[in-house]
Amino acid sequence: MAIKRHKISVIGSGFTGATTALMIAQKELGDVVLVDIPNMEDPTKGKALDMLEASPVQGFDANITGTSNYEDTKDSDLVIITAGIARKPGMSRDDLVNTNAKIMKSVAQEIVKYSPETYIVVLTNPVDAMTYTVFKESGFPKERVIGQSGVLDSARFRTFVAQELNLSVKDITGFVLGGHGDDMVPLIRYSYAGGIPLDKLISKDRLDSIVERTRKGGGEIVGLLGNGSAYYAPAASLTVMTEAILKDQRRVLPTIAYLEGEYGYSDIYLGVPTVIGGNGIEEIIELDLTEQEKAELDKSADSVKNVLDVLK
Amino acid sequence: MAIKRHKISVIGSGFTGATTALMIAQKELGDVVLVDIPNMEDPTKGKALDMLEASPVQGFDANITGTSNYEDTKDSDLVIITAGIARKPGMSRDDLVNTNAKIMKSVAQEIVKYSPETYIVVLTNPVDAMTYTVFKESGFPKERVIGQSGVLDSARFRTFVAQELNLSVKDITGFVLGGHGDDMVPLIRYSYAGGIPLDKLISKDRLDSIVERTRKGGGEIVGLLGNGSAYYAPAASLTVMTEAILKDQRRVLPTIAYLEGEYGYSDIYLGVPTVIGGNGIEEIIELDLTEQEKAELDKSADSVKNVLDVLK
Amino acid sequence: MAIKRHKISVIGSGFTGATTALMIAQKELGDVVLVDIPNMEDPTKGKALDMLEASPVQGFDANITGTSNYEDTKDSDLVIITAGIARKPGMSRDDLVNTNAKIMKSVAQEIVKYSPETYIVVLTNPVDAMTYTVFKESGFPKERVIGQSGVLDSARFRTFVAQELNLSVKDITGFVLGGHGDDMVPLIRYSYAGGIPLDKLISKDRLDSIVERTRKGGGEIVGLLGNGSAYYAPAASLTVMTEAILKDQRRVLPTIAYLEGEYGYSDIYLGVPTVIGGNGIEEIIELDLTEQEKAELDKSADSVKNVLDVLK
Amino acid sequence: MAIKRHKISVIGSGFTGATTALMIAQKELGDVVLVDIPNMEDPTKGKALDMLEASPVQGFDANITGTSNYEDTKDSDLVIITAGIARKPGMSRDDLVNTNAKIMKSVAQEIVKYSPETYIVVLTNPVDAMTYTVFKESGFPKERVIGQSGVLDSARFRTFVAQELNLSVKDITGFVLGGHGDDMVPLIRYSYAGGIPLDKLISKDRLDSIVERTRKGGGEIVGLLGNGSAYYAPAASLTVMTEAILKDQRRVLPTIAYLEGEYGYSDIYLGVPTVIGGNGIEEIIELDLTEQEKAELDKSADSVKNVLDVLK
Repeated sequence: MAIKRHKISVIGSGFTGATTALMIAQKELGDVVLVDIPNMEDPTKGKALDMLEASPVQGFDANITGTSNYEDTKDSDLVIITAGIARKPGMSRDDLVNTNAKIMKSVAQEIVKYSPETYIVVLTNPVDAMTYTVFKESGFPKERVIGQSGVLDSARFRTFVAQELNLSVKDITGFVLGGHGDDMVPLIRYSYAGGIPLDKLISKDRLDSIVERTRKGGGEIVGLLGNGSAYYAPAASLTVMTEAILKDQRRVLPTIAYLEGEYGYSDIYLGVPTVIGGNGIEEIIELDLTEQEKAELDKSADSVKNVLDVLK
Repeated sequence: MAIKRHKISVIGSGFTGATTALMIAQKELGDVVLVDIPNMEDPTKGKALDMLEASPVQGFDANITGTSNYEDTKDSDLVIITAGIARKPGMSRDDLVNTNAKIMKSVAQEIVKYSPETYIVVLTNPVDAMTYTVFKESGFPKERVIGQSGVLDSARFRTFVAQELNLSVKDITGFVLGGHGDDMVPLIRYSYAGGIPLDKLISKDRLDSIVERTRKGGGEIVGLLGNGSAYYAPAASLTVMTEAILKDQRRVLPTIAYLEGEYGYSDIYLGVPTVIGGNGIEEIIELDLTEQEKAELDKSADSVKNVLDVLK
Repeated sequence: MAIKRHKISVIGSGFTGATTALMIAQKELGDVVLVDIPNMEDPTKGKALDMLEASPVQGFDANITGTSNYEDTKDSDLVIITAGIARKPGMSRDDLVNTNAKIMKSVAQEIVKYSPETYIVVLTNPVDAMTYTVFKESGFPKERVIGQSGVLDSARFRTFVAQELNLSVKDITGFVLGGHGDDMVPLIRYSYAGGIPLDKLISKDRLDSIVERTRKGGGEIVGLLGNGSAYYAPAASLTVMTEAILKDQRRVLPTIAYLEGEYGYSDIYLGVPTVIGGNGIEEIIELDLTEQEKAELDKSADSVKNVLDVLK
Repeated sequence: MAIKRHKISVIGSGFTGATTALMIAQKELGDVVLVDIPNMEDPTKGKALDMLEASPVQGFDANITGTSNYEDTKDSDLVIITAGIARKPGMSRDDLVNTNAKIMKSVAQEIVKYSPETYIVVLTNPVDAMTYTVFKESGFPKERVIGQSGVLDSARFRTFVAQELNLSVKDITGFVLGGHGDDMVPLIRYSYAGGIPLDKLISKDRLDSIVERTRKGGGEIVGLLGNGSAYYAPAASLTVMTEAILKDQRRVLPTIAYLEGEYGYSDIYLGVPTVIGGNGIEEIIELDLTEQEKAELDKSADSVKNVLDVLK
């Protein structure tokens, strides 16, 4: 029985999709197929080829191809969805949701058609609802459809804490629950520098301001870039989730998971601590929450439900 | 005596500059300062911050900052120049040359002012002439001003050969002399798969077509992208040269070096095989060339001289 | 100014010293000089050469040499001391201490002679007292003489926790204070899986048994090996401390540091949480301890003092 | 379908086997089972545990276990055989061959029993004959039974050339044919520094002496160590072959392959250039040899046949 490399398809060849393809290839997690719509096919092929031409210099063996034909994604081990539009000026939030949901459904159908056994990781915003949409449309078991937000949110939090304390990012951990961005529920009491709870090292005021900055972290980048949104840290986050699954690492990572009673919610995708490995989401870790944390998580869940209502 | 990280400044925060900053940080070669002009300061800061936010996830410790103030580059160990404009429709080649030369001079002055002991690696096109310009303007010794083209050209060549033979890129080597792109002089007889000369493995026709594709490699990406040019492989190339210097590796890499009689040329920057390490360009390796190779190299040198004439 | 690789000398070419040399070279932290006594010179050279011959295959550039001549360690940036004897049957503990202290003094003199600006990391047992001995003999400032024990002890603890929970080692953190082995003071409340305090995930009984196993962790390996003691995990621990200093990472790591009033102790080397970076030990982090923890730490400090008394 | 890590079993837990296990784990190529005979079970478990305890510090996720029970190797993707005895003073070469052949047969039976679909890489000396023995005993297809010698021999050669020229090992390639050690047939004309044939860079005398040193490379280490033989570079060599197969890299590596007419030999295992990837040995590359090279290869083949005759 020949041993084959893993195959990872990345849907959407924008900055995030392309950077994700690069990072996956750099780690030799498998061959990468970068997919975009037909009128983006050439730029997609161009990015894939440019990356491939970096491989002899960086020393990685991974085929990277660009396409607009989903047939090329056949038998993917894992598919990452970054496709979707960003909200434009004048566009209502509901319009955004409906447009991206339509894209998710169409992408999900293609995935099911060509890779019925694959894992799916979703980044497209609003990510909780979009992951839900992909889950329903795909008919896949819940452990194989996963959304990304907490890895990115906690990465931002960790960055700001590392800067505040002038310490290695390797030793800072952060813990978030709930939705992406404004709806994020940071669990400061589960966040540390070298294992030491942050409230012993940083004043409440500074911590509050770090939390607030984390909540607005995506907006901060959008504001600075002027045109477009963050892609390096999102790509790194997608890559680490991909690695956890393809190397069956059983990492403890905050992901957007389908809840069936956990934390008191059902039939919803929400950011919770999970164990992810070779079976996708292998466990959802339930924590005791303080009243305030539970209230914030309720608010986060309500936001998701509101978006889901738009879709129904 | 405290041990300090290296400091690398990358001038120009476009796709190539930014991707180079990322790759340098991923390898923990040092802290990175990404520099652009004042009206690009916010996007530059945005990219730097986004990358920094990837660091906890990818596990690298490197500070990355964006700025438009050269003072922030003070005491850099190495400066990479990616700044410059691309040729626009209707722009004459001479206009391009003069505009970028002006940029090089201004950048060189800032580098000399803030980092008089640094190494400079130049990517801006036309790269042979631009490296020459930086060399003259900086007044630096020749071994500390180096241009990039051969690492990229040979990376493309290696990629195409690896595809042709369906072999690991790790085992394909390629050897180029002379200018970038059309002026490239490939030395097929010094190019191998697993040590086996390529002409024993690939037909002459296919090899010719691979060489031709390599020569047009930049254009192929430009054509596919539709808007903009390659950045992944160029960034990887700049990164490996940076690593060779900062880790004092004495790599044998084709670089654009100042010639004083080598290969029969003087007072010119041209792509030749070099040893690069902790002293920058430590050696220029002179090879016996066939008549045809020498003729092609002459043509390449003439191209460079023509550009230099524009500048004088 | 040429850029030079760091130079790291490893004193003692036994399994731990040799494995440390390999791991440092694999990470390209610098060139390595492996030192042993004259009648071990050939085996030391043999190990160094064998490692060097692995470098083309593993792709690292680092010179590795074996010697019995301290002159070869001249201008080291960092020196690791693994030399010393292990307790043999029938040998009293005091004999062990006195013999190793004599070795430490002699090694320290050589280090001071050839590398007066270097950092020193000590592994030799009993490590708290041996680090103290090297500190006194060298006359170096306290931040440049550091002992290893906590990184190893917490690595063992993390391994056992990862096994218990079947989770990635990447997401388990552990926190220890005090001496090595039996005198270790584990701070369970500062130890986590994915940020979640371990006592929420593991029963008290199981945790107690993991702590106990950690305390006896060195002995467990000695017992299994039958002949000799652990070297892989000790070498990894020395390497990560070396990396933190040479890359100026400001890691938060438990190390054996010289105390001048911290935690209520003075003129003693003891395992405490520290920040280590380009200045060696840059900070000692003081934590509030529970009464029990303080009592255990007192006991640990007493052990160290008893050993120091033997030396006086 | 859950995604599973690869499983690699290493037979023989001596220095080479143990170091191979470490290097495979460091690269996260899969979980490792280290196997030795029952009376070595405890030391084997000790080494495995010590390595595992290095994993939190080095940041790799790989289970490593020690055992004397082949049942634990069940469903291995790849098995590495390092078991066997070294020649002792007074032992005849034939005794060595017969003893190790007996070990190979017994190991092969266990492998077939528990992992009928696995790949086997053999290191035990005399390696050509031992690989042949495993091939015959296992009844496996030839592409799944591979011997190691050329990666190691060329690594030594590359090391000596890198030292001679003071260049990065990354840019030196070497090419060997034929048997291990004295029977090695170096193809200098296919060996390069930065793509430049070595005879343009190194005098014939020096090259001859480098070849001679390479041939005696194993003996040089044995002589220095005084007790035992090389293990770092052999382990690195086994690891890179393992990686090539498990990541399906189609590397061009010299390996010991079963010949059926190639180079004019049949029913013999001999060192030749091969392509190795997800199908094991995927191709044998046939090169035109000079008369001298062919004569040397004949001599090498004769040596192997002589050993095989001992076995028949």
